[in-house]
Amino acid sequence: MPGIIKERLFTPGPTPLLMEAQARTLVAANVHHRTEAFRQLMRETLEHLKYYFNTQNDVLIFASSGTGAMEGSISNLLSPGERILVGTAGKFGERWFGLAEAYGIEVVKVEAPYGHPLNIAEMKGRLEKDGPFRAVYIQATETSTAVSHDVKALGEIVKAYPETCLVVDAITGLGTTELRPDEWGLDIVIGGSQKAVMIPPGLAFASVSEKAWGLIAKAKLPRYYFDFAKERKNQAKGETSYTPAITLIISLHAALEYIRKMGRENLIANAALLAEMTREAAQALRLKLFAVSSPANAATAICAPDGMDSGAIIKELRSRFGAIVANGQGSMKGKIFRVAHLGYYDAADLFAVVAALEVVLLKLEHRVELGSGVRAAEEVYLRHCR
Amino acid sequence: MPGIIKERLFTPGPTPLLMEAQARTLVAANVHHRTEAFRQLMRETLEHLKYYFNTQNDVLIFASSGTGAMEGSISNLLSPGERILVGTAGKFGERWFGLAEAYGIEVVKVEAPYGHPLNIAEMKGRLEKDGPFRAVYIQATETSTAVSHDVKALGEIVKAYPETCLVVDAITGLGTTELRPDEWGLDIVIGGSQKAVMIPPGLAFASVSEKAWGLIAKAKLPRYYFDFAKERKNQAKGETSYTPAITLIISLHAALEYIRKMGRENLIANAALLAEMTREAAQALRLKLFAVSSPANAATAICAPDGMDSGAIIKELRSRFGAIVANGQGSMKGKIFRVAHLGYYDAADLFAVVAALEVVLLKLEHRVELGSGVRAAEEVYLRHCR
Repeated sequence: MPGIIKERLFTPGPTPLLMEAQARTLVAANVHHRTEAFRQLMRETLEHLKYYFNTQNDVLIFASSGTGAMEGSISNLLSPGERILVGTAGKFGERWFGLAEAYGIEVVKVEAPYGHPLNIAEMKGRLEKDGPFRAVYIQATETSTAVSHDVKALGEIVKAYPETCLVVDAITGLGTTELRPDEWGLDIVIGGSQKAVMIPPGLAFASVSEKAWGLIAKAKLPRYYFDFAKERKNQAKGETSYTPAITLIISLHAALEYIRKMGRENLIANAALLAEMTREAAQALRLKLFAVSSPANAATAICAPDGMDSGAIIKELRSRFGAIVANGQGSMKGKIFRVAHLGYYDAADLFAVVAALEVVLLKLEHRVELGSGVRAAEEVYLRHCR
Repeated sequence: MPGIIKERLFTPGPTPLLMEAQARTLVAANVHHRTEAFRQLMRETLEHLKYYFNTQNDVLIFASSGTGAMEGSISNLLSPGERILVGTAGKFGERWFGLAEAYGIEVVKVEAPYGHPLNIAEMKGRLEKDGPFRAVYIQATETSTAVSHDVKALGEIVKAYPETCLVVDAITGLGTTELRPDEWGLDIVIGGSQKAVMIPPGLAFASVSEKAWGLIAKAKLPRYYFDFAKERKNQAKGETSYTPAITLIISLHAALEYIRKMGRENLIANAALLAEMTREAAQALRLKLFAVSSPANAATAICAPDGMDSGAIIKELRSRFGAIVANGQGSMKGKIFRVAHLGYYDAADLFAVVAALEVVLLKLEHRVELGSGVRAAEEVYLRHCR
């Protein structure tokens, strides 16, 4: 150890923990979930989640990672023989394929190349020509490419189909981009705990609209652990169907109080500011952004310089500065690296990682003007924060 | 709250906590100090402290702030009617005056102007002409001005006086600057917990040489709580004379293990690197350093631009970026601000605070080139870390 190097997460999940929320679990060594005190905490947490999701719909909590709620959005909505429309533009979009396949559900795909947002007009055309579809599946932000999709436009389209639900994986979209599930017709919105809500992995969330409840009542695919209707009934009483992840819910309650105090819109604005700072810093350092358009606020995907493996950048950032950034996934591995902005990150964090990146790039013989990336980030800060 | 702003200490004590050390206290809810397990921990901690102090002398631990051990270095060494020589160049040096006065001890002063190191030749002259002195008091680093004194040179001089001890307040010197108490003749060296050792305030340390023990045996000033000889006897058995600050000692043990693993010399090199980065960054931002020469590694004192109150810089750093830096003390208040490097700070921390400073200076209408301070810091990093 050559002096002090602090580990710093800059990954799009897990994200840095809000220690005030984490600390609450330390004074909760003897909490039982079948008590009125816990029910009260659970009810409050569910109310806070509605605020966080910006919805009046039910929001359910599961002890699982986000993928569990994604599975639930398949198994609860569909019946054997039904077909779904899936829009994908990256590794998380492709997860819908595996889930559908596991349940024998036929998928019609609309795909955008990695780095591009989905073409919503193309999805509209598919809905019109290739239907009926019981549900449409999409990401709010595709974390693997750091691109946002226009879920609002898609919601307006799907609204016209009373027998079709729109399911949005907003695992990294929540807290980083404006979502109006009720106005836009986002019937199921999925979240996870290790993202902008600043707590550890282990909880999945799903908001469910009245339209979705109607279809769920008729859906015949098998489900047990992720049974939305059963969970709705129990959670209305502050109960859960199975043992809840008690400490995570205690953290969640505290983190959501912090977010309510800050304001959901300020959490989103924070991510947007950091994302813009990062984009301008990267460009000042002569690095290309992977997102061709519609970059996400949740994270920024940056291309390694030609001929350089992004893994080398990631390794040096970690060993020299303790900064942990994410590599690309699948075919993007080695080509890009991803710096996250979702949740508990601030401007000073960003200055630190950009300066660290400047040093690392120079060491790897990418010609950069030291300080120029930080300057670009500072200029963005100054434009927005007077 | 306009988005996320994390609080970050950049003060020369308290310093950021090593959470691995802090966490140990959380699994120690039922520790009693009159047990063999605690005695074992105490003995190990005292051994670790010897490593940290770089000495074979006894090192004692007190439940007090550093000032308590400073008082003990007066009350244990001296008898009524004896005189001491005090070298001072700032607010912490001046503390010796108050301590001596409280015990009716006559002081001969050697003073350097704020921002300057002590003139050791002048101290030598005083020792020769104005003695005898029972003890000489000095700081290793004067935290209020962020200047280091040449304790090695002074030690060589005082060694020649068998009836005179050299007492060094190394509260911010330990872990930031090389000290060789045994070779250099530093008879009593004083430390505190909330400094480079990365734990909270509440513990004072004092190493005591054989020469000092000899004088302590004859010293007549009253002492009770800070009775070094009594504490030596108890601590040799892993006991303390009065109730020890249990959780702080548990943290201390863990933090010293971390430091042993890193290497004392690497902890010092870390502070030296960050201090050099800060000095060059400040100069790139056209800010004057307060230390005219011999700047400390523990912290860097930077002058506010002409006509600007340093309090304005401090306020903006805190409100915009959560960065807490120290103002000047006494007559230096409003003129300087101090950025600390002692203990748990790393290069990425420094990049963050320098970038934050650039933004704040620009907002306060000090003309700076954005990114230039960070660049200067990066260049220092690159010179030292290949």
